[in-house]
Amino acid sequence: MPSFYSKRDLQFQLFENQNCLELTHLPYFADHSEETFKLVLDSAEQIAEKSLRPLLTEMDRNEPQLVNGKIRIHPSMKSIIRQFGKDGWINALFSYEEGGQQLPWTIHIGAGYIFQAANYSASVFPFLTTGAANLIRTFGTRALVEKFTPKMYSGDWQGTMALTEPDAGSSLSDLSTTAYPTDQEGIYKIKGQKIYISAGDHDACENIIHLMLARIQGAPAGTKGISLFVVPKHRISGEPNDVLTQGIYHKMGYKGAPIAHLMIGSNDGCEGYLVGEANQGLKYMFQMMNEARLGVGMNAVAIASAAFQASLAYAKERPQGRKITEKDLSKPQVPIIEHADVKRMLMFQKSVVEGALALLIFCAILSDKISQETDSEKKKQGECLLGLLTPIAKSYPSEMGVLSTSAAVQILGGAGYTTDFPVEQYFRESRIHPIHEGTSGIHGLDLLGRKVLIEDGLGWKLLQQEIQASLEKSSKFSALDSIHQLFENQLKKFNHSAAQLLFKMNQGPEIFLADATLFLEATGLICVGWMWLNQSVTAQEALENGSAEQDFYMGKIETARYFMEYELPKINGLTERFHSNSYPTLEMKREWF
Amino acid sequence: MPSFYSKRDLQFQLFENQNCLELTHLPYFADHSEETFKLVLDSAEQIAEKSLRPLLTEMDRNEPQLVNGKIRIHPSMKSIIRQFGKDGWINALFSYEEGGQQLPWTIHIGAGYIFQAANYSASVFPFLTTGAANLIRTFGTRALVEKFTPKMYSGDWQGTMALTEPDAGSSLSDLSTTAYPTDQEGIYKIKGQKIYISAGDHDACENIIHLMLARIQGAPAGTKGISLFVVPKHRISGEPNDVLTQGIYHKMGYKGAPIAHLMIGSNDGCEGYLVGEANQGLKYMFQMMNEARLGVGMNAVAIASAAFQASLAYAKERPQGRKITEKDLSKPQVPIIEHADVKRMLMFQKSVVEGALALLIFCAILSDKISQETDSEKKKQGECLLGLLTPIAKSYPSEMGVLSTSAAVQILGGAGYTTDFPVEQYFRESRIHPIHEGTSGIHGLDLLGRKVLIEDGLGWKLLQQEIQASLEKSSKFSALDSIHQLFENQLKKFNHSAAQLLFKMNQGPEIFLADATLFLEATGLICVGWMWLNQSVTAQEALENGSAEQDFYMGKIETARYFMEYELPKINGLTERFHSNSYPTLEMKREWF
Repeated sequence: MPSFYSKRDLQFQLFENQNCLELTHLPYFADHSEETFKLVLDSAEQIAEKSLRPLLTEMDRNEPQLVNGKIRIHPSMKSIIRQFGKDGWINALFSYEEGGQQLPWTIHIGAGYIFQAANYSASVFPFLTTGAANLIRTFGTRALVEKFTPKMYSGDWQGTMALTEPDAGSSLSDLSTTAYPTDQEGIYKIKGQKIYISAGDHDACENIIHLMLARIQGAPAGTKGISLFVVPKHRISGEPNDVLTQGIYHKMGYKGAPIAHLMIGSNDGCEGYLVGEANQGLKYMFQMMNEARLGVGMNAVAIASAAFQASLAYAKERPQGRKITEKDLSKPQVPIIEHADVKRMLMFQKSVVEGALALLIFCAILSDKISQETDSEKKKQGECLLGLLTPIAKSYPSEMGVLSTSAAVQILGGAGYTTDFPVEQYFRESRIHPIHEGTSGIHGLDLLGRKVLIEDGLGWKLLQQEIQASLEKSSKFSALDSIHQLFENQLKKFNHSAAQLLFKMNQGPEIFLADATLFLEATGLICVGWMWLNQSVTAQEALENGSAEQDFYMGKIETARYFMEYELPKINGLTERFHSNSYPTLEMKREWF
Repeated sequence: MPSFYSKRDLQFQLFENQNCLELTHLPYFADHSEETFKLVLDSAEQIAEKSLRPLLTEMDRNEPQLVNGKIRIHPSMKSIIRQFGKDGWINALFSYEEGGQQLPWTIHIGAGYIFQAANYSASVFPFLTTGAANLIRTFGTRALVEKFTPKMYSGDWQGTMALTEPDAGSSLSDLSTTAYPTDQEGIYKIKGQKIYISAGDHDACENIIHLMLARIQGAPAGTKGISLFVVPKHRISGEPNDVLTQGIYHKMGYKGAPIAHLMIGSNDGCEGYLVGEANQGLKYMFQMMNEARLGVGMNAVAIASAAFQASLAYAKERPQGRKITEKDLSKPQVPIIEHADVKRMLMFQKSVVEGALALLIFCAILSDKISQETDSEKKKQGECLLGLLTPIAKSYPSEMGVLSTSAAVQILGGAGYTTDFPVEQYFRESRIHPIHEGTSGIHGLDLLGRKVLIEDGLGWKLLQQEIQASLEKSSKFSALDSIHQLFENQLKKFNHSAAQLLFKMNQGPEIFLADATLFLEATGLICVGWMWLNQSVTAQEALENGSAEQDFYMGKIETARYFMEYELPKINGLTERFHSNSYPTLEMKREWF
């Protein structure tokens, strides 16, 4: 049994609580079945257990280093990345004609969950390549596709997303890397620098293919003047392409994956290939970024899962103290899982991990459906709902992942603070997720300032409909009465407060958006509460149908109850703000600090 | 100006918001004055800036190592510890006869705040020695005092508190290190092992003096059979005393301070000296532990202060994005402190740091008063109030310190996750505090299961009286109306819910204590809210008296408002539990996970 995720729960999420098999009714996925999906997941588990998990600690203790202008990473990564290529993971999503397997993204991200839970650093290399290759095949010319993607699919070449610059982090509109036209159509000279580029350079692959944002000379200011380029480290000829590794960032966690600082065209020798049309770069990137953001949510859940499993195993074995009612000190100590407060911290983790996983799988299935949707109205609806859920499904797991891994550390106590156990590493690794692929603050603005309002609130209305449908289902099970009631009451209160907040739009964007991050947090609680409502229904149905797995399903129902009793009420601490007319964060002046 | 704490705020806390000078009216402290206090604090700042802060990163990157059975620490610590001794920091609290300065603990812990904010690891060595020496001088014979304390005061010898064992962490009653009587009165042969001993061995001092808990052969089971011993690493003669360093723990943070695993008397050669009476060890230790616990609270605030200052400086300088109302992209980017969400994260940190600091100084002044109180009734009252506040003043800063340093990381974004800035180190270091000197779970039980109930709730009543007195004061300032109202309303709701919870005592300890940690968290919010109410009154008074420091005082009032608007409402997410009759953490079974 793997120690870093619950196989039983992943199968529950995919095949019982939600039905990923309905995807196989769509022509693109028609060759797939429960059997092929499970084969994929089993093979992910094998790689995770045999190749990735054993390197978890080692990759943390032996960070990548910049040596003679090249980043040296853990030597095992070379064969692991090739293995990912050979086994078809990198292009699994793509069509048969492209050599892919037409695998639903849902299953791919499910496999990713297993990889990431085993060893987050090691897992990012192939996923980055998939994302980069996907940009080329979706928006690039046939020539570009043929030139670059085959060696990316095989794992010989690494793909990256090169967005951030020293002066353009959250504010992408300010990026200044420049592309100068050349005599050759579609080929530009690129000049600038990029920072924080994940897998931006390393010695496990022969070439690094950057999907890079830059501004064509003379392009409009802001986001409307940004174009997308393929910028390889080495040209196809093998010559260097004037992409120099200026530095490597040493980080708190997630150390096995190198993050590079790149100088582009310092010697005027960097060629880049325009992808698609000029000035459409950010649009292209964002089409992929939704998936990248859900991917980050999944990374966060995966790490939280590994920490949860580690602390659960510890809590079952570590004897310490006695039941609070036991005064006889000659009795042996009990495993700490018997203490209510330890159980609380375990249930907290379980509720975060399995609740967020459910939300991400909901989004993944929705995303797969949208990709195959032919009815434009339905496609728009799906996109609005997915667009609305994306900042939530990225941010809830990211923010809660830090607290969840922190609870794992707490359960181990002093031992958890030492490097003798992996939980401290999980805690350090989890801290990146509220930052990369858009900080939580940015996602708050995205949710309240854009996604809630798009198409006259279509996404919001659809979310409410989905939740109402779940409530209708849960109302039919008397055993779930209290869970149903707690959720329904909280939802009503939340919707009332959210309406209050929406009224503030009249007062201008500063006031309206001042507490966008709190709105994001509250909406996250509602969405994950909704996911727990669904899980309790699925579990109750199974119990009423006489399932033999009493323990598993009772655990689901009790954790749903935990969520409604302990987590959902936190909304009340947030929504008071939506009713307030006092704005300390706007009033405060920098001189006052 | 030091970069790791606000000198202005510390002076506000000690001399304006609270009046530490009233301590100088007590005979023991009568030689002191504002001048001597400020001299002490200034000299702490000098050491902190010149000796401690420059080693912060270095001590993190070069961890102590166990080499040939001895722990090797940063070579600079040798002279730093001697400096602490020479300057009189280690025995500053003690009487003139003992060579001390009769310094109030309030000023000592204020100086500690400065040291800890500069370099937490480096700061712990002298504070541990003070704690250990204090146990010997308070409970030991004159002979023991003379034998051991002079070289501890000079910094030649290190003191430790040796409590934890492999099977006795949170459950101290289960400790099994044994003391066997010898022919010599007061001298015992000690046998056992101790883990997680801070500064338990290192090469910067000539000897290590452990204040060790052990059970005299045949002593009663549980906490009633625990005695306290002085167990030196080397005997006075210089011979080794069979205390072997079996291992060193490598940790997530706070790496400069070594934590040892010790084998005691493995070769039957360890002699220990009984301190005070047999079987009174835990009582003695706990008398010191209150101070140690408040000390941990202070450590947590200090680290949060350093992170706050670092992120504040960054936010003032780092340009990124524009005001939400600014659509002209040709305008330069603004420093991120202009963004409401960044200000929110800064105000959160400011509210945690300065609110918790106020609470700790309240406790410190109270502790100094109690130590000099001659009226037994007043002493009991003081002890009940301080006893009640201790778990809160330890746990609020510890738990919030993790979130506060996390907010500092978030403000720096990707940069904050790298080792180029100190905030990631502060985040790692902060994580120890909810664990050591009693986990938050243990303090929850201590608060609700003991401290609230002691002397028919005397401490609780006194706390309510203190808060009411503050409300009376704040009611006189119309400018503080909304702050006053928000606090008063929340307090009423909280007291109502707390009463609900107390009724549950009838249902037995399991139900009554199931949510003790949540009660601790809610009480922490109330106490720190109370501290912010006080600070707003002090600031408003200063403004009305025409102070020229408008910025400083306006910042206080606006942060008080922030606390009432953003932090205090979190109580509502906690108190719903006190009204609930559903107990998922009791119902959940281990097989269900």
